Amino acid sequence: MPNEYGNDTQKNRAQAWFELLRDELCAALEAVELDVKGPNASSEGEAGSFERKSWERPASDDSSIAGGGGVMSILRGRVFEKAGVNVSTVWGEFSEEFRKNVPGASQDPRFWASGISVVIHPRSPLMPAAHMNTRMIVTTRGWFGGGGDLTPVFPEEEETQKFHRAYKRACDAHSEDYYPKFKKWCDEYFFLPHRNEARGVGWIFYDNFNTGDWEADFALTQDVGRAFLETYPLLARTKMDHPWTNEQRQAQRVKRGRYVEFNLLYDRGTLFGLKTGGNTEAILMSLPPDTAWP
Amino acid sequence: MPNEYGNDTQKNRAQAWFELLRDELCAALEAVELDVKGPNASSEGEAGSFERKSWERPASDDSSIAGGGGVMSILRGRVFEKAGVNVSTVWGEFSEEFRKNVPGASQDPRFWASGISVVIHPRSPLMPAAHMNTRMIVTTRGWFGGGGDLTPVFPEEEETQKFHRAYKRACDAHSEDYYPKFKKWCDEYFFLPHRNEARGVGWIFYDNFNTGDWEADFALTQDVGRAFLETYPLLARTKMDHPWTNEQRQAQRVKRGRYVEFNLLYDRGTLFGLKTGGNTEAILMSLPPDTAWP
Repeated sequence: MPNEYGNDTQKNRAQAWFELLRDELCAALEAVELDVKGPNASSEGEAGSFERKSWERPASDDSSIAGGGGVMSILRGRVFEKAGVNVSTVWGEFSEEFRKNVPGASQDPRFWASGISVVIHPRSPLMPAAHMNTRMIVTTRGWFGGGGDLTPVFPEEEETQKFHRAYKRACDAHSEDYYPKFKKWCDEYFFLPHRNEARGVGWIFYDNFNTGDWEADFALTQDVGRAFLETYPLLARTKMDHPWTNEQRQAQRVKRGRYVEFNLLYDRGTLFGLKTGGNTEAILMSLPPDTAWP
Repeated sequence: MPNEYGNDTQKNRAQAWFELLRDELCAALEAVELDVKGPNASSEGEAGSFERKSWERPASDDSSIAGGGGVMSILRGRVFEKAGVNVSTVWGEFSEEFRKNVPGASQDPRFWASGISVVIHPRSPLMPAAHMNTRMIVTTRGWFGGGGDLTPVFPEEEETQKFHRAYKRACDAHSEDYYPKFKKWCDEYFFLPHRNEARGVGWIFYDNFNTGDWEADFALTQDVGRAFLETYPLLARTKMDHPWTNEQRQAQRVKRGRYVEFNLLYDRGTLFGLKTGGNTEAILMSLPPDTAWP
């Protein structure tokens, strides 16, 4: 599938970046696990570290037609009750049903996709949960996408603004048009209509992103990943040593229920993955470890 | 909306039956709460009883066009960690989008619907969870429907067969054709493709049920409800005094996660309700109180 936007070199560079970002994020989160001194956390035992598990996509006889796979990294620790970082690179053909919904796939159903997806469920109800993913997709067209949100149980305006400013900086470095558009898209996307409430306090969301300049678009996607790497672990450190109450913990378990509702009722990636034979364990790694609908 | 199958007298009788069944089920479950002596349960405090909360459907100015509502009954007890019994009777017009999927609604969008829905999440991992619902719907046509399943964490063949025999008896009293068809329908419906596993050990499922004889069809739906009333509370009694381990409890929390996945990803009633502005609290009363995706 010759394609100027998304040639083999570009695919390799994107995949290598997602894997590098994974390594750096895992290291930053493991460092938090080592450094925590807080009273609740220390009672939970040893510092957690990431365990990796790879999976392969069921391939056809000819691996040039369909194949690939991914690596799940999971940490179950004393600060991060469950943190998952998935990287995957897969290729194949979209089913008849999905072709019409994917840009550039109706002419030729072949696709290539690589990305990173991060979900963090902290033990402390005072520390926001977070989700971040970025990806590169190639059909007869090619584009980048990404999204996520910060999901505090008890939102704090100053913390929220600090987080948003980091993404504004990352976007503004490329074009001042991006951030307002991506933030609005996020607020509309991470919303639960049946609860009439947002899942979290937002972040950014972008998709089908192709300015015609692959280098520039890739650089934006890298900066978005770096902004997460530079903000979330620091945010976690500001909260990791604070004790919490059982009432706060119960509020967190209920908030996590809303997170489950969003992912299973509305999240496009989750529904797309589950209904097209994706790796269930990797897709549902996003679900929170301890949840309540009281 | 004149309709021979589903006239006003029939509507009133169906609604009265669903409410009577609700009262009898609540009383039977409350009796179990009083009678339990088991070591785990007794440490959890007082016997639970049902609390009722009514809700009204957002009505148009003219209540002859749209209206109705329902009553939620919830028990949070020492045997039943969360048991919910909803009855509702609503009427109105289906949206453009849904008309084409509902028998008899494309000619005239008006509908009337009444039903009972029961979900029981026991505290003991040795006691199966259970779901049961039956309903009567009237459009330009009219019909009954129902369904549910028994959802044990640790299935026991003898218990399962005993439960199935009760529904076979209820169905066979009306026609020997029903049970095999309804059981197969249930097994196909309560299935999680992404896990390649059944939600529970089955029960029955039927829909669009109209033989042309309203009295006979109503009698079947009553017998189905009676079979649940006569089997589940007795089954609960055989398990209520057995102690369990933390490992068994954790297995139950994980199994409940599968229950959530089914309800939010596949259950037609849940998705239909949430996406058509139903009462969120009543619809999601089905979700389990303490759940894990470890």
